[in-house]
Amino acid sequence: MVTLYDDPISGNGYKVRLTLSQLGIRYRYHALDITRNETRTPEFLAVNPNGKIPAVVLDDGRPLFESNAIIWYFAQTGAAQAADSDSVQSLVPVEPFAQAQVLQWMSFEQYSHEPKVAVARFIMLHTKDDDSRRNEIPECHEGGYRALDVMEDHLQKRAFFVEDTYSIADIALYAYTHVAEQGGFDLSSYPAVRRWLKDVASQPGHIRITDI
Amino acid sequence: MVTLYDDPISGNGYKVRLTLSQLGIRYRYHALDITRNETRTPEFLAVNPNGKIPAVVLDDGRPLFESNAIIWYFAQTGAAQAADSDSVQSLVPVEPFAQAQVLQWMSFEQYSHEPKVAVARFIMLHTKDDDSRRNEIPECHEGGYRALDVMEDHLQKRAFFVEDTYSIADIALYAYTHVAEQGGFDLSSYPAVRRWLKDVASQPGHIRITDI
Repeated sequence: MVTLYDDPISGNGYKVRLTLSQLGIRYRYHALDITRNETRTPEFLAVNPNGKIPAVVLDDGRPLFESNAIIWYFAQTGAAQAADSDSVQSLVPVEPFAQAQVLQWMSFEQYSHEPKVAVARFIMLHTKDDDSRRNEIPECHEGGYRALDVMEDHLQKRAFFVEDTYSIADIALYAYTHVAEQGGFDLSSYPAVRRWLKDVASQPGHIRITDI
Repeated sequence: MVTLYDDPISGNGYKVRLTLSQLGIRYRYHALDITRNETRTPEFLAVNPNGKIPAVVLDDGRPLFESNAIIWYFAQTGAAQAADSDSVQSLVPVEPFAQAQVLQWMSFEQYSHEPKVAVARFIMLHTKDDDSRRNEIPECHEGGYRALDVMEDHLQKRAFFVEDTYSIADIALYAYTHVAEQGGFDLSSYPAVRRWLKDVASQPGHIRITDI
């Protein structure tokens, strides 16, 4: 069975939990507390030498880290690993250009979205009002709203991020967007993003970020 | 013919130039100066709404952005597009787990390496000694050396990043590592990284970052 190393508060970890849920893949859950440096133990560094969750260890012991690489792997190989392989939905397109677009939006998420939207949420949930990290929030909001603008514009013309079909690109971007308000973002002027959030949440096998 | 939008100083753009060179794919080069906001024009935002180079427009007009998505696309489809398709080398493995490892190291590069190693270089090359951005350099060095430590440890046991075979994972990590000294990094205590830099530079079709 797959083992998932994760912190329940992590949106990056949620991407993996959501993907595994939607593919019907069972897994063992290993919770680590990132605020207590539990990702810096020798045991975990043998899984991910970069000391970050999420990471997985496959049935045969091979480790894999980086959320978007993990969900790509399971989306590509999911049918073979699912408990009920006949009913597995496809979470990644087959055509090479569409696959590259999935990677494009996952890269956008990791580089232009997550470092702003997720970091604002982390600071607001895990630091006190007088913590010096609170000074980072205006810059997080500036960059985060810029990323949300790109998403809004894209989603005004399309149902989902790639080929109007739900994929791991949507999972990657949903993870922190749907909890952006916890980082102080106001989504009221992003109607297409809000419509898309509802559409993602209504997909078969959807789970919430608090569902472990 | 493919059009590449790039700034000649960009290591992210160099990833694409190097990949296209090694695949033997000819392209039109469109230079933009990021220090003069030339990536914020309406014309370019129609190619990449996120306003960042590199981006490409394919023969048929379809745009693609994010360096790692672009090099993935050409590595997957390169043989069909190359001038001499018989001699095209493979830059991405075929097995799904190995492909996921390529994505893992490309994600590591974009999230844990580039924002430190590339940013230190940008600041040192493009700001004056008394610029306030110089204050970011110690944090860039701290995170950058942490990423280099992970690379050193990995490369002490392997020839290249995935399956001991040169791939786009190596291209992605080479782009800014081989010019890390321009950002004030000292690689003298990274012998495996220095050995790997030489091995990457000796691959067929290799070009330098200054080759446009």
